[in-house]
Amino acid sequence: MKALVLDPDPRLDLAFAEPERAPGEAIVEVRVAGVCDTDLQLARGYMGFSGVPGHEFVGVVTQSDDPSWVGKRVVGDINAGCGACPECLARGGHHCAKRTVLGILGRGGAFAERLTLPTRCLVEVPPTVPDDAAVFAEPLAAALHVLDEASAVDAPVIVLGDGKLGLLITRALLGDQRRVTLVGRHPTKLELAARVGATVVLEHEASGVERAGLVVDATGSAAGLALALRLTRPRGTVVLKTTLAGATSVDLSPVVIDELRVVGSRCGDLARAVLALARGAIDPRPLVEARYPLDRAVRAFEHAGRRGVLKVLVDVS
Amino acid sequence: MKALVLDPDPRLDLAFAEPERAPGEAIVEVRVAGVCDTDLQLARGYMGFSGVPGHEFVGVVTQSDDPSWVGKRVVGDINAGCGACPECLARGGHHCAKRTVLGILGRGGAFAERLTLPTRCLVEVPPTVPDDAAVFAEPLAAALHVLDEASAVDAPVIVLGDGKLGLLITRALLGDQRRVTLVGRHPTKLELAARVGATVVLEHEASGVERAGLVVDATGSAAGLALALRLTRPRGTVVLKTTLAGATSVDLSPVVIDELRVVGSRCGDLARAVLALARGAIDPRPLVEARYPLDRAVRAFEHAGRRGVLKVLVDVS
Repeated sequence: MKALVLDPDPRLDLAFAEPERAPGEAIVEVRVAGVCDTDLQLARGYMGFSGVPGHEFVGVVTQSDDPSWVGKRVVGDINAGCGACPECLARGGHHCAKRTVLGILGRGGAFAERLTLPTRCLVEVPPTVPDDAAVFAEPLAAALHVLDEASAVDAPVIVLGDGKLGLLITRALLGDQRRVTLVGRHPTKLELAARVGATVVLEHEASGVERAGLVVDATGSAAGLALALRLTRPRGTVVLKTTLAGATSVDLSPVVIDELRVVGSRCGDLARAVLALARGAIDPRPLVEARYPLDRAVRAFEHAGRRGVLKVLVDVS
Repeated sequence: MKALVLDPDPRLDLAFAEPERAPGEAIVEVRVAGVCDTDLQLARGYMGFSGVPGHEFVGVVTQSDDPSWVGKRVVGDINAGCGACPECLARGGHHCAKRTVLGILGRGGAFAERLTLPTRCLVEVPPTVPDDAAVFAEPLAAALHVLDEASAVDAPVIVLGDGKLGLLITRALLGDQRRVTLVGRHPTKLELAARVGATVVLEHEASGVERAGLVVDATGSAAGLALALRLTRPRGTVVLKTTLAGATSVDLSPVVIDELRVVGSRCGDLARAVLALARGAIDPRPLVEARYPLDRAVRAFEHAGRRGVLKVLVDVS
């Protein structure tokens, strides 16, 4: 099959091996896939990855042990746990020690004509949700997962970082009726958030922002985390949404003095994301900046890697 | 009055100004005070402190607007909030923006014949609790505050750091019927914890310890925090008990990947600590390493500053 392959530089492979379907897994024919910053990191050698990247997708099931899935349009949870350990049984596979992760760890991803995932990871997409919205289900699920740390519905939330993830988190929170202040560096991106109801502030003016009980750091930088700690009220929560690779140098004394909670937040619930899309509470499509056919996926990666670029989609079939 | 004064080097002052009692405050004649690592940091210039340090004490009330307090033996919450702001009214003064802190911030401390605190900060000590146990009420309250992050009573807890605070936290957790593994560097100190029921492990063998849902970092070091992150189960909690001053270089990626909660934990509830002492659940007196009269408090500070020294007490009156 045709696939974008990293080893670790991206290249198009016209005859890549078809994925093998294990028992309990489905074959999904990919329709659209989205480029995430993690994909760009994998292309720079992160996690020693080689193979097909891509974990944001919408596609159609072509094979499954359960024939009722065949023909369904789906998105999928990217964490394929073993399905049998206490962690999987109690809370799904997000923290299964033996998990594979679609396009990230031990499992080929979505920049290919076909992928496999355990059928239990799939979520059907209702016909009212177009492909270009459904392809955001995975990052939207991660964005909505922030709400699991937000106790009081009416309390204001500060989001740091106006990249793809920060903008999506802002939309997710606004769609859940939260008051959101987005702190960023790019007036044009902040404008996107202002248009849907966020209060927006340029980073160099952030010191004037009133501290909040919940601050989401989606900057991926030590400076962002330091700012998050300063903008959080005593006993408040900082949600860390972006992995800071390697050692980070940051003054953690506010964590103890103000008794803050710094909570890591990774993947979320795909069904919740699909529901939000189906309800029309969130429309992520204004975040699409460009699209490329799979034949030009190498160019799509180049484009996505440019500074300040929003979501780049790849049309696979 | 006689007092130990930092400016910032410690010196004995035989004619230091008496503390002035504001409305709502009590004068407490100090009996015994304990030297905390924070006091040693203040003597090295931390927080630009000058004046009388000391925030671990037991004493007797000699003056109060409320005459029923006079003559009572007390310990005290060191955070003197304004008493009027929403934070004070809802949850006490621990995070009041206008608070003074006994012997740390804007309020003279316990290495003096007399101190003042708002009467609402005082907790009476029952006659069954001797001075040498009562003087631990403040650090014990901080240690017991860790339990506020421990949801499941039977779940094991790992404590990192066999200094004064780590040993006290170990005792506090054991007194609350928790299973505790203490990781430290000093066989003699670990032996103190083993004697009261902790499983003890030398730091260089810590990689063999099974991960736990709750890990308490009382090392005050970046290496300790890094170890804590590695020893915490996915979705588990790391309680940071010691302030890391200045920038700390640490790999925070496990926070996001394992969705950990890093929770800062500072002061606790003095009444809870006094209750634990009165019940006999915890006896902190084996942690006393030396005692000095107030006249020799400078020597007490020197002693407490030596590597590996446990609690040094100062007999004030």
